Amino acid sequence: MRVLGIDPGTLNMGYGVVDSYGDSMTMVDCGVLKFSPKIPVEQRLRFLYKGLGEIIARYRPDEVAIEEPFVAGNVRSALAIGRAQAIAILAAVNEDLPVFHYLPTHVKQQVTDYGNSSKEQVQEVVRIQFDLPQSPQSTDATDALAVAICHFQRKHIDHLITNSQ
Amino acid sequence: MRVLGIDPGTLNMGYGVVDSYGDSMTMVDCGVLKFSPKIPVEQRLRFLYKGLGEIIARYRPDEVAIEEPFVAGNVRSALAIGRAQAIAILAAVNEDLPVFHYLPTHVKQQVTDYGNSSKEQVQEVVRIQFDLPQSPQSTDATDALAVAICHFQRKHIDHLITNSQ
Repeated sequence: MRVLGIDPGTLNMGYGVVDSYGDSMTMVDCGVLKFSPKIPVEQRLRFLYKGLGEIIARYRPDEVAIEEPFVAGNVRSALAIGRAQAIAILAAVNEDLPVFHYLPTHVKQQVTDYGNSSKEQVQEVVRIQFDLPQSPQSTDATDALAVAICHFQRKHIDHLITNSQ
Repeated sequence: MRVLGIDPGTLNMGYGVVDSYGDSMTMVDCGVLKFSPKIPVEQRLRFLYKGLGEIIARYRPDEVAIEEPFVAGNVRSALAIGRAQAIAILAAVNEDLPVFHYLPTHVKQQVTDYGNSSKEQVQEVVRIQFDLPQSPQSTDATDALAVAICHFQRKHIDHLITNSQ
C-alpha cells in the first residue's frame, strides 16, 4: 500500500511517497514544489495542481494524507493555506483517491509521541524511520513524510482495534 | 467580449455571465452552485471545479473576474474562502483564461458609487443594469454579476484613460 503525504503551502508544497507492507515502511520519494512569491498566485496554483498531478501519475498512490493547516489568528496565512489545501485535495479527488486529514499536533503526537515536539525531533524520527544518512533537506518534505507515517500508524492502530473487537 | 463573474464560497458559489459591446452590457446567465455542508469538503471542491468547468465550456468567457474575499479576523472563514477561491482560479487558468480580482468594496464603489452600499442597493443596480423584472433570487448570483459589471466598467475606464493620453 502506497501513501502520498502532503504538507500544503502555495510557496512550498512538501510531498512524500511512502510504501508500507505489514509493519515496515519504505520511503519511495520526497521533495518540495517550490515557487517564488514573484510568480502570480494564479500561475502558482496552476503549477501546483499540474505538479501534484504528475507526482500522482508517476507514483500511483492508493491514498493521500494531507496535513491540516495550523493558522491561529492570521487571516492572510489562512487564505493562502486554504488555497494550497484546496489544490492538494482537488489533485487527489480528481484521481478518485481517498483523502485523509491530520492536524500538525496529531502528526507530532503520532510520530514522536509528543504533540509539541520540535521540527528537529520530527526530522530525526523521519530519518531513523527510513534509515536515511541524513534528514531530507526541506522541512516541508520531512513534514509530508511525517504525515504519511502518521497515516500508516493510524491505519495500523485502527486495524489492531478492529481485529481485537 | 464575455466575462464570467464569480463570487466564491464552498457552500454557495455565485456565477454571472455578462456580454459587453461598447457601452452596453447584456446578462447571458447567472446562478449559484449550491452544496449542503453535510457533503464532505473534498467532494464539494470536486463538484465546484467540475461545475465551473461546465459553465466555462458552455459559455466560453474571454475573461474571469473573481470577488476577493473579505474575511476580517475569522480564520475558519478565511480557510474556507481560500479553498473556494483556489478552485475558481484553477478552473479559469486551466482553460488559459485571464483572471482579475476585485475587493468587495471596490465592486460596490464601482457599481453603486459607494463602497459601503447594502446588498439591496447592489441588487437594485444589477436589476436596472440588465433591465430585469426582479433581482436574481440568489445574492451570490447578484454579487457575481456585480463583479462582472465592475470588471467591464474598469476596462472601459482604463480604455478611456489610455486613449486620452
